[in-house]
Formats: sequence, C-alpha cells, structure tokens
Amino acid sequence: MKKRLKPILLILTFLLSAAGHFAGWNTTVQFLLSAIAVIFVAGFLGRATESVAHYAGQRLGGFLNATFGNAAELIIAILLIREGLYDMVKASITGSIIGNLLLVLGLSLFMGGLKFKIQRYNATLASLNGSLMTLSIIALFIPAVFLNTHSITTEGIKMLSLIVAGILIVAYLAWLVFSMITHKEYLADVSDSNDEDALAHEHEPAWSKKRSIVYLVIATVMVAFVSEWLVGVLEPISHQYGLSELFVGAFLVAIIGNAAEHSAAIMLAMKNKIGAAVEIAVGSSLQIALFVAPVLVFISFFLGNTMDIVFTTLELLAIGVAVFIARSITQDGDSNWYEGLLLLAVYIILGVSFFLV
Amino acid sequence: MKKRLKPILLILTFLLSAAGHFAGWNTTVQFLLSAIAVIFVAGFLGRATESVAHYAGQRLGGFLNATFGNAAELIIAILLIREGLYDMVKASITGSIIGNLLLVLGLSLFMGGLKFKIQRYNATLASLNGSLMTLSIIALFIPAVFLNTHSITTEGIKMLSLIVAGILIVAYLAWLVFSMITHKEYLADVSDSNDEDALAHEHEPAWSKKRSIVYLVIATVMVAFVSEWLVGVLEPISHQYGLSELFVGAFLVAIIGNAAEHSAAIMLAMKNKIGAAVEIAVGSSLQIALFVAPVLVFISFFLGNTMDIVFTTLELLAIGVAVFIARSITQDGDSNWYEGLLLLAVYIILGVSFFLV
Amino acid sequence: MKKRLKPILLILTFLLSAAGHFAGWNTTVQFLLSAIAVIFVAGFLGRATESVAHYAGQRLGGFLNATFGNAAELIIAILLIREGLYDMVKASITGSIIGNLLLVLGLSLFMGGLKFKIQRYNATLASLNGSLMTLSIIALFIPAVFLNTHSITTEGIKMLSLIVAGILIVAYLAWLVFSMITHKEYLADVSDSNDEDALAHEHEPAWSKKRSIVYLVIATVMVAFVSEWLVGVLEPISHQYGLSELFVGAFLVAIIGNAAEHSAAIMLAMKNKIGAAVEIAVGSSLQIALFVAPVLVFISFFLGNTMDIVFTTLELLAIGVAVFIARSITQDGDSNWYEGLLLLAVYIILGVSFFLV
Repeated sequence: MKKRLKPILLILTFLLSAAGHFAGWNTTVQFLLSAIAVIFVAGFLGRATESVAHYAGQRLGGFLNATFGNAAELIIAILLIREGLYDMVKASITGSIIGNLLLVLGLSLFMGGLKFKIQRYNATLASLNGSLMTLSIIALFIPAVFLNTHSITTEGIKMLSLIVAGILIVAYLAWLVFSMITHKEYLADVSDSNDEDALAHEHEPAWSKKRSIVYLVIATVMVAFVSEWLVGVLEPISHQYGLSELFVGAFLVAIIGNAAEHSAAIMLAMKNKIGAAVEIAVGSSLQIALFVAPVLVFISFFLGNTMDIVFTTLELLAIGVAVFIARSITQDGDSNWYEGLLLLAVYIILGVSFFLV
Repeated sequence: MKKRLKPILLILTFLLSAAGHFAGWNTTVQFLLSAIAVIFVAGFLGRATESVAHYAGQRLGGFLNATFGNAAELIIAILLIREGLYDMVKASITGSIIGNLLLVLGLSLFMGGLKFKIQRYNATLASLNGSLMTLSIIALFIPAVFLNTHSITTEGIKMLSLIVAGILIVAYLAWLVFSMITHKEYLADVSDSNDEDALAHEHEPAWSKKRSIVYLVIATVMVAFVSEWLVGVLEPISHQYGLSELFVGAFLVAIIGNAAEHSAAIMLAMKNKIGAAVEIAVGSSLQIALFVAPVLVFISFFLGNTMDIVFTTLELLAIGVAVFIARSITQDGDSNWYEGLLLLAVYIILGVSFFLV
Repeated sequence: MKKRLKPILLILTFLLSAAGHFAGWNTTVQFLLSAIAVIFVAGFLGRATESVAHYAGQRLGGFLNATFGNAAELIIAILLIREGLYDMVKASITGSIIGNLLLVLGLSLFMGGLKFKIQRYNATLASLNGSLMTLSIIALFIPAVFLNTHSITTEGIKMLSLIVAGILIVAYLAWLVFSMITHKEYLADVSDSNDEDALAHEHEPAWSKKRSIVYLVIATVMVAFVSEWLVGVLEPISHQYGLSELFVGAFLVAIIGNAAEHSAAIMLAMKNKIGAAVEIAVGSSLQIALFVAPVLVFISFFLGNTMDIVFTTLELLAIGVAVFIARSITQDGDSNWYEGLLLLAVYIILGVSFFLV
C-alpha cells in the first residue's frame, strides 16, 4: 500500500504543478505546488540514480551517485543562470552548503542523539572531509578578497574564477579516485561493520536494469520541468512577500532542493547509521562546493557570460561559519544530541540574520 | 590562624573601601581599595555559593555553581549598563573571555607544567568546549558583520541582538542539561579518577546549611556595594592615567572581577588537577559568552534601552584569537608548560596592543 | 663520481654568476645564473651547518641547525632591507611560509603518499606545531588589524612591531628549550623508532671538525655574495617581465631560497621518513615566522629605519590560508597522497591569484 502511494503522489504533484503553471494560478499556489513537486521528483531521481548505480558496479556506480546526487540543485541553478539571476545562483549554492552542514547534519545528530547516547563514525573520513571543506572555503574566499583589496579587472576576476573552478573540479575528481579506488577500505564506515554497504545500497533496487535507466531519464526530464516552474515564480514570490533574493535563494530554494537528502540522512541517523548520515550531509555540501559551483562557472562560460566565483561577504561568512563549526563538531568521530543542537542554533542565527537584512 | 585571617581581611578591606568612597579620598586610593575589596568579596561569594551548592544536591548545586560563578562580573556589568557605559560593558565581557582563556588558562598550564611534565584531562570535554566556544564567536561575529556590510536599521540590530541572545541562553541551558543530566559520566574528569568530585567540592563546606544561605545573601549584597564603588571611580581613573575605556574594561575590570577564579584555577593546576583548572578557565569564559553577555542584553532591554550585541572589530579580533589558540591548545587533552607560555604570549600581545591604541 | 660532481657544480655556478654580475651580462641570464648559484650555495651551507652541528653535540647542534637553517633567506632579506625594499622583504617572508607549508609539505605528502599508502608521524608534535603556527598568524594579524581599524601613529606601529617581534623571539627560544631539553623524548618521531636521529644526521659528516668550521665560514660568505647578485637583478627582472614585487618576492625569491630544504624533505618522504619531512617543512615555516621575521624587524631597527611587522591583507590571507589547511591536514598524524594534492591545489590558487594582481 505504502509502496503504491509514492508513485501516485509523484505523478499527482507533478500534474498539479503543471496545471498551476500553464493555467496561471495564484502565484503562492504555484510556488507551493512546484516546491512540493520538486521534492517528490528529486526523491524519484535519487532512487533512480541509486538503482542505475547498483547495476553499474561499484566504481562507476559510486561515481554516478556522487555526480547525480545534486542533479536537482544543478538543474535549478542552470535555469537561474539562463535567466541571468547570478545572485540567486550564488545564494542557493550558499544555502545548499549551509543547509547540509547545519540543518541536515544538525537534525541528524540531534534526532540520532536523542535515541542513542553516543554515535560513532570513522574519524579519519571526518578529518579528510574537514580538509576538503577547508579547501572549498579557501577557494571561495581568495577571489573575493582579491576583488576587495586590489584593482583587478572584470576579465581578470573571470579568468581567476575559471582557473579556481578548474582546480576545484580536479580536486573533486581526485577525491573520487582516492575515496573509491586507492583508499576505499581505509575510509570504511565504523558504525556499519556488520552491514557493509549501508550508504550505497540502503534501498535494494526494486527495478530491473532497463527500467532503472528509463526511470533515470524520465526523472531527469521531470526535474527539469518542475524546476523551471519553480524558478519562474521565485521573483514574483520574493516581491510579494518582501523577501530578499538572498533569503529566497539561500533558504527557500536550498531547503526545497535538498529535501530528499534531508529526510534520508535523518532516517539513517535514527537507525544508528550515523556514519552514512554524516556522509550524506557533509558529502553533499562538498559536492556543491567542489563540483556543482565550479561546473556552473564553466556552464555560464559556455553560455557566453561567465559567472564569477565571487560571493558576497555575507555568503562567505555563512559558509565559513558553517564549515568552521561543522569541522569542530565532526572531527572527533563521535556525536550526541547536543552537538546537533549547536549546529541548529547556528542555522537559526544565520536564517534570522538573512531574513532581517 | 590562617582561617581567621581571611574573614578579618574581608571585613577590613570592605570597610576601608567604604570609608574611601564616602569620605571621598584620593581617586587612585579609592580605586585600589575598591579593587582589593572586590577580589576578597568575590572570593567570599564564591565560597558561599559552593557551600549552598553542596547542600542543594548535585543537580541544583551544579546549576547554582554555574550561574553564580560569574556573579561579580554580572553585577559590575549591570552597574555599568545603568550608567550607560555600554562600551565598557562590552570591553569587560571581552576582557573576561580573553582573561579566562589566555591569562587564567595560560598561567594554569604554565605553572602546572613546570611541576608536572605532562598533565592530562578529558579530551571529549575539551572538544565539546571547543565547539561551544566556536558557537560563541559565531554568535558574536554575525551581528557585527551584518552591521558592517548591510544597511540594517538600529531597530533591526537590536532585534537581532535579542534573538541571538535568546538562542545563546537556550544553548547554555541545554548545555547544563547535557553536562549535568544526560551525559554526566561521559564528561567525567580523567585526572581525578580517585577523588571523584575535585571540582565541585574542593573545599568541604565549613558552614552549616543555614549559615551558608545567610552568607550567600550577605556576600551578594557586599559584591553589589563594592562593585558600585569600583565602577564609580573607573572613569576618573581612565582620564587621570590617560587609559582608554577599552583598556580599562578589558584588562583592569576583567582581571579584578575574575581574580578569585584565577587563583583557584592555578592552585588546582599545581596540585595536578589540571582537568578542574581547565574547566574553571574555559567554563568561566563560556558562561560569560553564552550566559552573562546575553542576559545583559535582556537586562538592558528591560531597563528600557537595549544594548546591542555588536562588538568592535578589535574586541572580536581579541575574542576570536583567544578562542582559536585556546581550542588549538586544549583539543588534544594533554598539556605542558610551553602551551601555557603560548597562551600568555598572546595575552601580552593583546594587552600591549589595547594599551597602545 | 657523484660525490665529486657537487663541489664542481658549486664552484662553477658561483664563478659563472660572478662573471655575469661583474661583466654585466643580459639581465635574464644574470638572474638565472645567480638563482642556480643560490640553490647550490644554500645546499652547501646546509651541509656545513649540519656537519658543525654534529661536532657541537646534541644541544648546541640542534640550536645551530635550527638557527642557520634559514641563513640564506635571512641574508637575502637583510640585503633587501638595506635597499629599502621592505615590501619585497615581507613578500618573501610570506612566500617562504606558504612555500614550506603548501609546496614543500604538499610535494612531500604527495610523493611519499604515491609510494606508501599511509604514512604516520608524531601527532603530539604535529599538534604543538599547529599551536605555534597559530601563534605566528595571531602575531602577524594583530598589528595589521590595529592599523586598519584605529588611528595609531607610525611610531606606535613601530613600537608595537618591536614588542611583538620580541615576544615571538622569546617564544621561539622557549620552543628550543622545550623541544630540545625539557620534552625531547616526548616529541620523538614515531616513524623513525629504529634509526633514532634521522633528521639531524641524515648525512654522516664526511668532513673533520676543523674543515667543517672552515666550510661553514666559506659557505656563509658565498651565500652573501650570490644573494647580493640575485637581489641586484630582481627589480630589473620584475619590470622586464611585468611581474609585481609581490609575485617576485613571494614566489621566485621564496622558491629559490628554499630549494635546498625542498629537495631534502621530498627525498625523506619518499624514503618513508615522513616525520622528518613534515618537520623540515613545518619547522622551517615556523622559523621564518617566529625567528627570521622578528629578527629582521630588529635588524632594520639597528640599521636606523624600523620595518614594521604589518603585512598586506593579501599576504595575511595567504599565510592564514596556508596555516589553516596545513593544520587541518597535519593534526591527525597520518598522511596520504590526497592530502598532498590538496595543499598543492591551494598553492596553485594562491600563485595564480598573486600573478594576476
């Protein structure tokens, strides 16, 4: 029964959102319908990706999982770039990073910690993740500081953005080689010694190989459509409710785009699979910073108007703060409810601040 | 003999300070007398609090200890607020935080390290303390950065200050629940495995329950008086010696207000109870940042003129720097004289800088 | 045969560089010749220092090694000060610090990691080094922030610079006492348990005591000469190729001046002596920050025109970033190729940025 419910809701919300869009319903209704549709469709895309990854074998599958993991955010961002809404793109990148590191990780540690006194995970992985996060903020801070302290031409900043983006993509690909090939066992999850592949194969695929691929294609197309409908109402919604682009991008878009991962991570944490939950939250934010953001720079370059990688002071503050406290909390490899609460406290402070501006 | 000396000195310095104040003696003499009186009275208040805490049982006692621990600073700060000296309030908050993290912790590690080659304490607690310190600086940095980078109204900043203060108080109360109820044993001090309650019951109470309560009331009243006399001469003293409010608040007031904890922590370190010493120094700075500072925001709100939580760049630098090096040094859970010296070096650099401005 | 080659190359490059200088050859040729000569002569100086240190006994030897270790950089910097090129001095200090922490450490971890899956070293030492690095950036940041946020006189900044420099030198001398006397065994290298003194005596001295001292004197004089010839062509070279003083100082001068240590550290890493390699890279950057930089402040003071210790925002960013990621990577006491790659990625990003300005 429950299995039947999900596809029905998926199709229903998709159709309703389409109806709202084409019939030009009330903006708020359109926004709500498309937001709900994005959540369901992104969840469907996630399951299809996992299923294809399962058949593709461990290595290629890991790569697929890692790369398609943020497909919804990527598609939303490309649509925003096409509309020239660069500020909202950066705000939504910021929001995805802090949403994963503070909201998803925070809720996972908090909910998991309420059920289990202490939860442990691989500290080596946590430490390496911390270093990668550090690389991300360094890469994002340097162009901004250069722009603010030196007379550097727009062309110079764009070239610097492309070079930094290229270096980040190389670092990301090397990370995949490192974590999936050369040092795979070294990063294995300590909390899952008995069920070795909790993360990748949480859901044993219910679909055949062929069907999985068809579903992946369908899901990708659906994501593109509903994202388009969502993006289309963002500006009117911002004006109607007096919200800044920054707040809409960093909180609304980011929470909607990441909802599927959010619920997955929290469910895992409550099953005491905290290592997998941390991996989703931290891994997802790393993908955004090291892969999605730089890829967007290149996409904007090929679309003819390079988006620079210069974030505002406030965005850098939010990202820096999120990385700093997330590293502080994850570096010892064990967690409790209070650590989750601390992350949530920082998320709320940032949310209130962005809202008040 | 020695036991008799303390109460005599307490009463004597109190009366001398009173005489100086009411007879209008020379300002420098008034300052010195009231400073010495504050130190003795704060020590008396500390002993009375501990004694009442002892009779109140472990949980309520822990809470009393934690909350009354910085009563002297709190009272001084309230008097400063009443006089409208908001800059000096913030300077003294800054000074209390850096004084505890650099001077008290530094002297404890240094003196303890000269006697014992390596001293060990609970690294889990140190790590959690580090995360709490990180939350404090994040909470203090965000409003300042917002004010400096965005056009935000004075009302907006005050509202943000109240919200941030509220979140910090919630985080602090949750910390008490965490450390005293849900995860008490988990944070037990490794260096005191044989004498389990070194921190809370260092001095077995010499007073009966009734007498302890009476003394607590008397001590609180005395603190209020001598603090008033001290605060009254701060401005004339600053002018007379050409000292900035910043230096007076951050160094003079902070050192005087924390003198009792200072000597307690150093004594513990020299008895190889380094865990308890670190706990006093770090715990005290956390109380200031997470409890005293936000409570002052609410008190100023109820007094009719909300003090915002926006610190100056220099104060944030000092706090950030102190947190950063203290975390770096405490996170491994063992200490030596050189780590103490590093903390003291940073304290001196900050002191000289504040003095030169 | 190979043993004979080195002295011949040393003398040959020295003479060619001299010829180029005195005969006024083409600037680019002069630059290349003097650069190569500096590399050989600095290597010679390093071997002579080690040899003298060997005969001087462990304690004095350690001190000699530590102090003469950056003699080439020190001499180059003094020559730059004499010419009044303060900006280039600071750029080369910056470059030495980031070159050691990112390029040398990065290449060591990367090359070592390609040969050995995981390499381990003493985490206690790494943690203390991290705290020392933290002290260095704090000491460099504070004067800059003071200058940027407060009206402080030039005289005030110079006095602050001298005081900060004095504190850093005291901290450095105390570190020598700590690491060579009071806590020597505590910091022993875990990766070298069988060959106890890998770092200090990598090359068993081939020279007699007397000859070693003579060579040390000769090497020091040679370094002074070739450094002079190198410094003499830096400005013309910068203009000819349109390079900023910042880039020349921070990349060209720093790479040339540190080439000898670079190759030594990488060789050690590839022999699985990663502890010694980390010690060279991190130790060398600490020497620069805690000893060379403050000594230069005092030297400029005695030469009659005190160089302040205020670095530019960009230099502070580069140093801060390098310390931050190096600490993040070294704090767990084990390493792999990916960690090396991350350090190199940051170095390249900084290099490109400095070049584009």
